[in-house]
Amino acid sequence: MAKDKPSIPKGTRDFLPVEVARRNYIFNTIRNVYQLYGFKPIETPAMEHLATLMGKYGEEGDRLIFKILNSGDFLSGLPDDVLQSKQPAKIGARICEKALRYDLTVPFARYVVQHQHNITFPFRRYQIQPVWRADKPQKGRYREFFQCDGDIIGNDSMINEVELVNIIDDVFYRLGIDVIIKINNRKILAGIVEKTGYADKFIVFTTIIDKLEKAGIEKVSQELARAGIGGDAIETLKPLLQMQAGNNDKINYLRELLKGVDVGMEGVNEVVEVLDMLKEVKPSSEVDLDVSLARGLDYYTSTIIEVKSKDVAIGSVCGGGRYDDLTGVFGMEGLSGVGISFGAERIYDVMLEKDLFPEKIETFTQLLIVNFGKKEQNYCLSIAKELRGQGVQCEIYPEHAKMKKQMQYADKNNIPFVLIVGEEEMKSGRLSLKNMKTGEQVVVGKEEVGRSVLNSSES
Amino acid sequence: MAKDKPSIPKGTRDFLPVEVARRNYIFNTIRNVYQLYGFKPIETPAMEHLATLMGKYGEEGDRLIFKILNSGDFLSGLPDDVLQSKQPAKIGARICEKALRYDLTVPFARYVVQHQHNITFPFRRYQIQPVWRADKPQKGRYREFFQCDGDIIGNDSMINEVELVNIIDDVFYRLGIDVIIKINNRKILAGIVEKTGYADKFIVFTTIIDKLEKAGIEKVSQELARAGIGGDAIETLKPLLQMQAGNNDKINYLRELLKGVDVGMEGVNEVVEVLDMLKEVKPSSEVDLDVSLARGLDYYTSTIIEVKSKDVAIGSVCGGGRYDDLTGVFGMEGLSGVGISFGAERIYDVMLEKDLFPEKIETFTQLLIVNFGKKEQNYCLSIAKELRGQGVQCEIYPEHAKMKKQMQYADKNNIPFVLIVGEEEMKSGRLSLKNMKTGEQVVVGKEEVGRSVLNSSES
Repeated sequence: MAKDKPSIPKGTRDFLPVEVARRNYIFNTIRNVYQLYGFKPIETPAMEHLATLMGKYGEEGDRLIFKILNSGDFLSGLPDDVLQSKQPAKIGARICEKALRYDLTVPFARYVVQHQHNITFPFRRYQIQPVWRADKPQKGRYREFFQCDGDIIGNDSMINEVELVNIIDDVFYRLGIDVIIKINNRKILAGIVEKTGYADKFIVFTTIIDKLEKAGIEKVSQELARAGIGGDAIETLKPLLQMQAGNNDKINYLRELLKGVDVGMEGVNEVVEVLDMLKEVKPSSEVDLDVSLARGLDYYTSTIIEVKSKDVAIGSVCGGGRYDDLTGVFGMEGLSGVGISFGAERIYDVMLEKDLFPEKIETFTQLLIVNFGKKEQNYCLSIAKELRGQGVQCEIYPEHAKMKKQMQYADKNNIPFVLIVGEEEMKSGRLSLKNMKTGEQVVVGKEEVGRSVLNSSES
Repeated sequence: MAKDKPSIPKGTRDFLPVEVARRNYIFNTIRNVYQLYGFKPIETPAMEHLATLMGKYGEEGDRLIFKILNSGDFLSGLPDDVLQSKQPAKIGARICEKALRYDLTVPFARYVVQHQHNITFPFRRYQIQPVWRADKPQKGRYREFFQCDGDIIGNDSMINEVELVNIIDDVFYRLGIDVIIKINNRKILAGIVEKTGYADKFIVFTTIIDKLEKAGIEKVSQELARAGIGGDAIETLKPLLQMQAGNNDKINYLRELLKGVDVGMEGVNEVVEVLDMLKEVKPSSEVDLDVSLARGLDYYTSTIIEVKSKDVAIGSVCGGGRYDDLTGVFGMEGLSGVGISFGAERIYDVMLEKDLFPEKIETFTQLLIVNFGKKEQNYCLSIAKELRGQGVQCEIYPEHAKMKKQMQYADKNNIPFVLIVGEEEMKSGRLSLKNMKTGEQVVVGKEEVGRSVLNSSES
């Protein structure tokens, strides 16, 4: 290849050490909370059969799936008339049997059906893995990004919703992000369209009101009208979609509005059940019934959840909902569940903007041992071994270089302590420990070095 | 798609919860040790430009790279004569610009060149990520597998080799695997072929003796003869390749044999330097100079390392070596380094066979709270919150089911404790805690539950 400056495919990213540390801080927090709630980890392969993924994400989704070219003679199974047709979609489906996973939900559904005999239901699983989409890259949108999904499947009880809201509350509390947790129920939305006489327009209705936050009420009203929803109905909807009130007032209003509309009342009762249980656990985040919350995805059938940062305008940082049928498409009917997905990339951006990452995660090596030459180096090898046994992350500068160079290395690598072991120190067994932040240098016994470094990193 | 039993592409794997836990135990051990030695994590994208990878792994390697079909109209840039040629390699290169990474070394080299102005050398990095190869799947060989690489680049000192041997020793000690760490130096091998008069046959020589362990000395001798190496030379080589002796005796023998062969003596001196430094840190594993160790990869130029389990015959569980030029192919000359790579899949197999995984990693939920109905459930929600705050991994059974069913759920999920909170317990605040292993059931105060569960999991 040409010796151009090397690069990576657009929409993908390299992560520098500090970025890896920050991302792992987020992943570990989410992982720990999932585990506290009894969720078990699973992992699925990056590649799935193309047929497993196709047709699950709509037409647009199909186009955004990354296909993997068959290895070997990929043309061998391709009839000449298909080749000559020069139709990308047709040819692509013949020369690619595999594709990169597009989300974690479809692979999870496939996993559940495939391993159903190894699973005890209700099944609580979490999964933190990258997904790939051939979306147009833009700020905050990547072609490779992580999803952090948690689902409880095989059980209809609303306590599962409560567990998931608690998980959300716990994760953001631990990360230090102030959020508002919005919940709604698709049955309430179904009730509303039924009430206004447009039950047949449920899907288009949810798709349009999903844009409310970005587009505003006027644009949304126009779109609803264009979709064939009458003026009276829109006038009924407007106050509902813009309602500023406490959860109780909203519920009373809905109970009045949806009287006699069974599906709607069912939705209201489900929301009430969730909110009542939440009173027992008193989440730190505000939980707000938001009737305008619709979520674009068709497979949600009941509760829907969306989480927003209160301080940073960035879209939702977590979302989810309840679905009637996760696995029917793979031949296992009637398995319902509820799940959430944390958006690690947005959480990262919020934490960076609000300076929420703990400082200590940016420290890798805690102690650099200065190298004064072969003899000292040998002496320091056993000191380093001792310190590592105590849990101190340390390294010996790998050669006898000028002191200034070694100190610069410590500095550039953000190393908080430097240990100086020259001939004098070897003789006395008393070593010089320099705190790079304060500049303070103390003489300590060999056996005190580890404690000094570790105590300081804890504080 | 048809509702056949869903499956995944051959050579890939789903990981069940217990497998994820075991794999993470290995990854975390390796990660922790790397960090103790001052290594920093980086991550690179799953996809690289195809041009970044092609030509780096030999002809065979090129064929095994998974290519990703360009999105959109991938045929648009394809001239008709190329399409009509029906040559897979030619067409593949035109319709795929991206590919899945084949190892972590080439992406690391690319990363170093691309981010050179953000890196302080010497640079110690580790990287634990999956790679993909279109190899024929067989027992223990997968198309998606993890590599766990650590490298120190930008420094020539042999102390780096010592650090890496220590890391290897530390990792396998922590995992409980008895290993032998074999080291050799490609300069010794170069010296030997020069001494026997076949300096021009260095590459073919190393390729052949690399097979020694599998093929045996007679087959290897025949292959060497077929490659044009004379009978005298082979007779000189035979005792050397089969030498059973301590490191000191081997070194003395080599010093005698390679007298006057500069490159060979240099290799011997480098090995001696490494072995001498290792005496300071006294690794727990045996470190054995093995002159027959060659390692297939051409880019090693000095030290080579290979690690074998002493108890399980499974090939090497870790390997590595020193290279003169990591980044020249990307236009940055003269950057040398030394690195190792742990084979997580084989380590997993050894640990499973020797039953080395700690039992506690197979526990997810530590405590199941039995569900006696709505009222009890509400009471238990706040108990669960309390327990999770204390670090207890717990869940409430999500509905009021028969006791037997709930106990079976605990049993099948390997949950060690069950908490029974009925009307009586709610009144008294004294709860029944059942140890599922011993069957013992005790009555404890609400505030003692967490301590009881956590104490037991520690022991």
